[in-house]
Amino acid sequence: MEALVLTGKKQLEIKNIDKPEVKPNEVLIHTAFAGICGTDHALYAGLPGSADAVPPIVLGHENSGVVAEVGSAVTNLKVGDRVSVDPNIYCGQCKYCHTDRPELCENLSAVGVTRDGGFEEYFTAPASVVYPIPDNVDLKSASIVEPISCAVHGIKLLKVSPYQKALVIGDGFMGELFVQILQAYGIHQVDLAGIVDEKLKMNKEQFGVKNTYNTKNGDKIPASTYDVVIEAVGMPQTQESAIESAARGGQVLMFGVGGPDAKFEMNTYEVFQKELTIQGSFINPNAFEDSLALLSSGKLNVKPLMSHELDFNQVDDFVNGRLGVVSKAVVKVGGEEA
Amino acid sequence: MEALVLTGKKQLEIKNIDKPEVKPNEVLIHTAFAGICGTDHALYAGLPGSADAVPPIVLGHENSGVVAEVGSAVTNLKVGDRVSVDPNIYCGQCKYCHTDRPELCENLSAVGVTRDGGFEEYFTAPASVVYPIPDNVDLKSASIVEPISCAVHGIKLLKVSPYQKALVIGDGFMGELFVQILQAYGIHQVDLAGIVDEKLKMNKEQFGVKNTYNTKNGDKIPASTYDVVIEAVGMPQTQESAIESAARGGQVLMFGVGGPDAKFEMNTYEVFQKELTIQGSFINPNAFEDSLALLSSGKLNVKPLMSHELDFNQVDDFVNGRLGVVSKAVVKVGGEEA
Amino acid sequence: MEALVLTGKKQLEIKNIDKPEVKPNEVLIHTAFAGICGTDHALYAGLPGSADAVPPIVLGHENSGVVAEVGSAVTNLKVGDRVSVDPNIYCGQCKYCHTDRPELCENLSAVGVTRDGGFEEYFTAPASVVYPIPDNVDLKSASIVEPISCAVHGIKLLKVSPYQKALVIGDGFMGELFVQILQAYGIHQVDLAGIVDEKLKMNKEQFGVKNTYNTKNGDKIPASTYDVVIEAVGMPQTQESAIESAARGGQVLMFGVGGPDAKFEMNTYEVFQKELTIQGSFINPNAFEDSLALLSSGKLNVKPLMSHELDFNQVDDFVNGRLGVVSKAVVKVGGEEA
Amino acid sequence: MEALVLTGKKQLEIKNIDKPEVKPNEVLIHTAFAGICGTDHALYAGLPGSADAVPPIVLGHENSGVVAEVGSAVTNLKVGDRVSVDPNIYCGQCKYCHTDRPELCENLSAVGVTRDGGFEEYFTAPASVVYPIPDNVDLKSASIVEPISCAVHGIKLLKVSPYQKALVIGDGFMGELFVQILQAYGIHQVDLAGIVDEKLKMNKEQFGVKNTYNTKNGDKIPASTYDVVIEAVGMPQTQESAIESAARGGQVLMFGVGGPDAKFEMNTYEVFQKELTIQGSFINPNAFEDSLALLSSGKLNVKPLMSHELDFNQVDDFVNGRLGVVSKAVVKVGGEEA
Ligand SMILES: NC(=O)c1ccc[n+]([C@@H]2O[C@H](COP(=O)([O-])OP(=O)(O)OC[C@H]3O[C@@H](n4cnc5c(N)ncnc54)[C@H](OP(=O)(O)O)[C@@H]3O)[C@@H](O)[C@H]2O)c1
Ligand SMILES: NC(=O)c1ccc[n+]([C@@H]2O[C@H](COP(=O)([O-])OP(=O)(O)OC[C@H]3O[C@@H](n4cnc5c(N)ncnc54)[C@H](OP(=O)(O)O)[C@@H]3O)[C@@H](O)[C@H]2O)c1
Ligand SMILES: NC(=O)c1ccc[n+]([C@@H]2O[C@H](COP(=O)([O-])OP(=O)(O)OC[C@H]3O[C@@H](n4cnc5c(N)ncnc54)[C@H](OP(=O)(O)O)[C@@H]3O)[C@@H](O)[C@H]2O)c1
Ligand SMILES: NC(=O)c1ccc[n+]([C@@H]2O[C@H](COP(=O)([O-])OP(=O)(O)OC[C@H]3O[C@@H](n4cnc5c(N)ncnc54)[C@H](OP(=O)(O)O)[C@@H]3O)[C@@H](O)[C@H]2O)c1
Ligand SMILES: [Zn+2]
Ligand SMILES: [Zn+2]
Ligand SMILES: [Zn+2]
Ligand SMILES: [Zn+2]
Repeated sequence: MEALVLTGKKQLEIKNIDKPEVKPNEVLIHTAFAGICGTDHALYAGLPGSADAVPPIVLGHENSGVVAEVGSAVTNLKVGDRVSVDPNIYCGQCKYCHTDRPELCENLSAVGVTRDGGFEEYFTAPASVVYPIPDNVDLKSASIVEPISCAVHGIKLLKVSPYQKALVIGDGFMGELFVQILQAYGIHQVDLAGIVDEKLKMNKEQFGVKNTYNTKNGDKIPASTYDVVIEAVGMPQTQESAIESAARGGQVLMFGVGGPDAKFEMNTYEVFQKELTIQGSFINPNAFEDSLALLSSGKLNVKPLMSHELDFNQVDDFVNGRLGVVSKAVVKVGGEEA
Repeated sequence: MEALVLTGKKQLEIKNIDKPEVKPNEVLIHTAFAGICGTDHALYAGLPGSADAVPPIVLGHENSGVVAEVGSAVTNLKVGDRVSVDPNIYCGQCKYCHTDRPELCENLSAVGVTRDGGFEEYFTAPASVVYPIPDNVDLKSASIVEPISCAVHGIKLLKVSPYQKALVIGDGFMGELFVQILQAYGIHQVDLAGIVDEKLKMNKEQFGVKNTYNTKNGDKIPASTYDVVIEAVGMPQTQESAIESAARGGQVLMFGVGGPDAKFEMNTYEVFQKELTIQGSFINPNAFEDSLALLSSGKLNVKPLMSHELDFNQVDDFVNGRLGVVSKAVVKVGGEEA
Repeated sequence: MEALVLTGKKQLEIKNIDKPEVKPNEVLIHTAFAGICGTDHALYAGLPGSADAVPPIVLGHENSGVVAEVGSAVTNLKVGDRVSVDPNIYCGQCKYCHTDRPELCENLSAVGVTRDGGFEEYFTAPASVVYPIPDNVDLKSASIVEPISCAVHGIKLLKVSPYQKALVIGDGFMGELFVQILQAYGIHQVDLAGIVDEKLKMNKEQFGVKNTYNTKNGDKIPASTYDVVIEAVGMPQTQESAIESAARGGQVLMFGVGGPDAKFEMNTYEVFQKELTIQGSFINPNAFEDSLALLSSGKLNVKPLMSHELDFNQVDDFVNGRLGVVSKAVVKVGGEEA
Repeated sequence: MEALVLTGKKQLEIKNIDKPEVKPNEVLIHTAFAGICGTDHALYAGLPGSADAVPPIVLGHENSGVVAEVGSAVTNLKVGDRVSVDPNIYCGQCKYCHTDRPELCENLSAVGVTRDGGFEEYFTAPASVVYPIPDNVDLKSASIVEPISCAVHGIKLLKVSPYQKALVIGDGFMGELFVQILQAYGIHQVDLAGIVDEKLKMNKEQFGVKNTYNTKNGDKIPASTYDVVIEAVGMPQTQESAIESAARGGQVLMFGVGGPDAKFEMNTYEVFQKELTIQGSFINPNAFEDSLALLSSGKLNVKPLMSHELDFNQVDDFVNGRLGVVSKAVVKVGGEEA
């Protein structure tokens, strides 16, 4: 079968490799779509994602497809099931797995990072990370449940309530997901700060955003205003701006991932006097079912955010930044009929 | 000014009485609309509501209006503010008020129950129970924030998540509110059981309900199916049916108010094996701001549920059940221009 | 090696069987102590526990021991580790496993129920259910972390706070555990209702209980008094008494397991007016680390509650009720030196 | 009656003033003890506490005493009640009071700050902030329920569990309270970092601390180690050290109050990768009943921490730092017999 293999640092090759064999607790999946994101840039460049990717390896950690074969110990899936795959595999043995915080697992492995992922016609995954999808959810949307579930996990770390006013900082794909998901959880007002006018406009016109700030154009975010602030960029200045814009009693989700040596500053008195919560968020435990439900109920509409549909040949362009502004790209492997 | 006074058991009279005086911590409100509900039936008939109503008294505990005068100690309201009034006044001194459960206050008093309410042109209330409303919320909808906030309180007692399937039992006004509010909090599927075909149909066509059951017509609610069940009737058979329809891990909100001597049965083994939560719900603490936010964001649309707009003369018909099927009636006192 | 094998309904035989082989994700444990409880009565008699036990099988689902061998995929354990074993094995694939409620797993299996347990010199278990114990916790106490963790799970389902007054109904082993654990979680007053004077006395004198009620002797539990009530018997009359003794705002944990056809009654009005929470509790997810910490810190002292230390020959006496009053019996297999 | 009056900036005078009059919702209290803390230093020097103190005023915001008179609207107190007084008075009208976050009240006033406090023989307070104390709690301990309740509030903002390892940074009075209270809430291991050897030693020998670090003497706190970290100093270096010592999944309570212009730094990547929670804590809502319960049950023993008992004449020495090392000083106004 055809596969896009990372054969070395910054080396991607389309190759013909063997279909993988299924272990007792695994399923074989005929790939439909495989999302592609910033982590893939990093892995391509030889940098670690949630873990190291050691070539030769097939990337692709945001996947959907159709079950083609099930291992002997699999109980909840059958051939023909349309599925979305959570890349993250928890060890079940460490202190974090034992205290209901599996995302912090000491032995995390991942489909598309430490084992072959979705940039190939068929891939395998343990049944425990494979989720059947509702009939009314398409396989393209289902390929990006992984990033959706990261946002859902972040929101579940906060206390959200309809009376709150929320601000999302960052008009990238994650910021746009938060815009919709915050509303789906009941929050009555969501504002958006970003740097791309078209994005801000689209979110105001189509996705219920009330106020937008283009900070590149000099818009100022009002200070001490928001009950919930989502930082979805990962730069010190946006992190400090997130804290500053938080109202007394505010909760700031530090969702963006910054450089390992970058630092941001907090005012010693402000954290007390505003009684702030600053909350980190790491990947996506226990969030796939909620994410699929948001898609199924129509509260979350991701199709308009999926800007590019690539084939294997174009992945190289993507990871080298030759595709221009990409909101969200997916690789069409088998497609809906997969 | 004109007032509808309960002058004795089952005696309502339209009278001309003095405008009330404002104490330092109170405001005077020019009444716009005053909702009317089952509690008013009870008070009219000399039965207790959340407390006893001792005639002569002006009923009306679901009120909206415009601030006409503010007491000297009032800080957060001014003349002209459009407001909704929470009837419940907590003492602040008892053990429940001291442990963040004010709804269980040992010295509860209430506007429209223990002191004059909204069935008069002007009424007073302590500033602490008076809520300014958003510009885009109309005064008619604002008059029924009290029942809305009871439903919101009930939902806040549960753990709700998009993946859950919910069932509402009861197609009265409260049941209909729950249908919308459960979805506003993110739940992806809400089903409705009731006894009136038109109601069931309307909720399916207009308010996102997926499956309906007319139990009067013999429809059976499937057993062990729902993650969240709202009982909004208050009869033993619907309470038992609520428990039966709950899935393993299910939460059942016992929202309906039953007769003082009625009893329902639970299976000793089922509560363990399903790991059920059976949760009572009492009035509406800390829920007005959320309720107003739900109205303001449009997630909750109550206008289609408000079937009757009465004047003082018709209240007698209402409390004597001469108006036919009433989903929700409000008394138009001053109206939007109030 | 020696094993006590359930060879058929009500047939226990001491046999010499092969040491089990270790699979990649498993460890072999040299058994120290194996607790024995009501579930073993049931399994012996051919009734289901959390699942069915199909003879020939070695019972024993409350186990401690020393790791004797580790499989190739085991990361967090090594030979010589002193351990306690959680019997419950979750499938990881079902909707309950996927929504953070593994205790409700649709494919639950268990050491000592569906696979050989601790009534033998060596037994195996998946590494994911094997917990290293702190140095200052003895292997005898470690053998009963399973029942401790059931109580801990129950308490985690409630909202506990120091100001609360708690009542435990049931002076059996579980009731006695709750007496100590409620205090360990901060609750300032715990009362105990039971039927055995010596037990009540011991808990008052040694374990901080304030008031006791011997309901067999006619003591009446005061009504509407307790913020937290733990029902640890499982009979309709104690369940109804639990609800009756709950104060307004009270939480009742229905921990006792009743007969499949028994029913208890609740007052329709009381659940509303008291705003009660009735909470079922099922086994022990994510509770082993907390339980071990309670033992290690000395907040929980179980040695005085462990009344009997048996050898294989006496198990038959136990399951046939020939040992008299047993608070908690453990089978000494290898003992501390295991 | 005798009173210690702040007559101007840094001017304290013992004066004979009139006994205050009781308003309908107030009680008159015969002062027993009045605690004295860092806030009093600030107010004495003309700096703001939770609010501004405008001379002439009687300070003293940590008070106990005996009810001497009750206003006409008071329902839950009577003459002779032994009481502890929460200084903080919430307006009940603002958006924070309306959304269950009264500590952030926009119109906060306080006994001993904006109105006369306990440094006088008799003072008044609204009945809503006056708490009867259990019989077995002495009036001296009861005078410091205010700081205790600040610590309790802080802990209630976290998720605490027995399995966690906690570190307290700061061996002042608040740090010492946290040492005991964390254990009272079930946490199995508490370590303490400070700068005074005797304090560290006392907390290890008497109050269950396991490891201590004297950072002044060069002890290093291990990095990435603690599940819960309480910062109870308020300086940038201790705040940064708090974050550094937090394990993955760690929660850091920023309890110390820093200078208005001080700043501390956080690593952009660490907040994500450790999935940290940084939580501010502001005063003490809804925490008096829990605090009194902790004293009553003996889980919290504050007498050994109360180093000084002063009379009015010595307050001047205290606020000018002439008393040497003070762990906790109280002014004995009426004393136990009060
Ligand atoms: N916590 C988690 O589990 C998790 C999971 C997924 C992603 N993340 C992180 O979340 C962040 C967002 O992810 P993404 O996929 O949306 O990445 P992205 O598409 O690169 O989005 C970042 C966006 O922020 C914009 N931006 C740059 N400077 C800004 C500023 N000053 N103010 C507002 N917006 C600004 C960027 O614009 P330009 O593109 O024009 O620069 C970009 O559109 C990343 O840091 C990612 O690593 C975290
Ligand atoms: N917990 C609280 O704080 C709180 C607050 C407000 C209200 N409540 C309670 O909530 C309940 C509902 O209030 P509501 O204002 O909606 O009253 P309602 O209008 O009388 O609604 C009850 C509805 O249930 C219907 N019903 C009767 N039998 C039924 C059955 N077997 N299955 C399904 N539906 C059935 C009734 O139909 P018919 O009218 O045709 O009989 C009616 O439409 C009442 O018990 C009320 O006291 C509680
Ligand atoms: N939810 C869970 O996950 C879970 C886990 C473990 C156990 N359980 C259940 O918890 C319950 C207690 O377990 P256990 O091991 O402690 O069993 P147990 O030792 O049999 O305890 C039950 C105790 O209650 C006493 N009792 C009987 N009638 C009573 C009454 N009217 N009032 C007060 N006490 C009365 C019994 O006395 P006599 O022995 O003299 O009759 C016995 O001491 C059982 O139902 C068990 O199945 C539940
Ligand atoms: N959040 C709230 O609601 C709230 C309420 C009450 C208090 N607080 C704050 O909590 C903090 C502690 O209060 P407190 O009453 O305990 O004050 P305190 O008695 O002054 O305690 C601070 C202690 O930290 C010690 N310290 C100084 N540098 C240190 C270091 N590098 N490492 C460890 N310890 C160090 C101080 O020692 P020396 O005295 O020798 O310098 C002092 O003993 C203060 O910032 C206070 O404002 C907050
Ligand atoms: Zn792990
Ligand atoms: Zn009260
Ligand atoms: Zn499962
Ligand atoms: Zn306020």
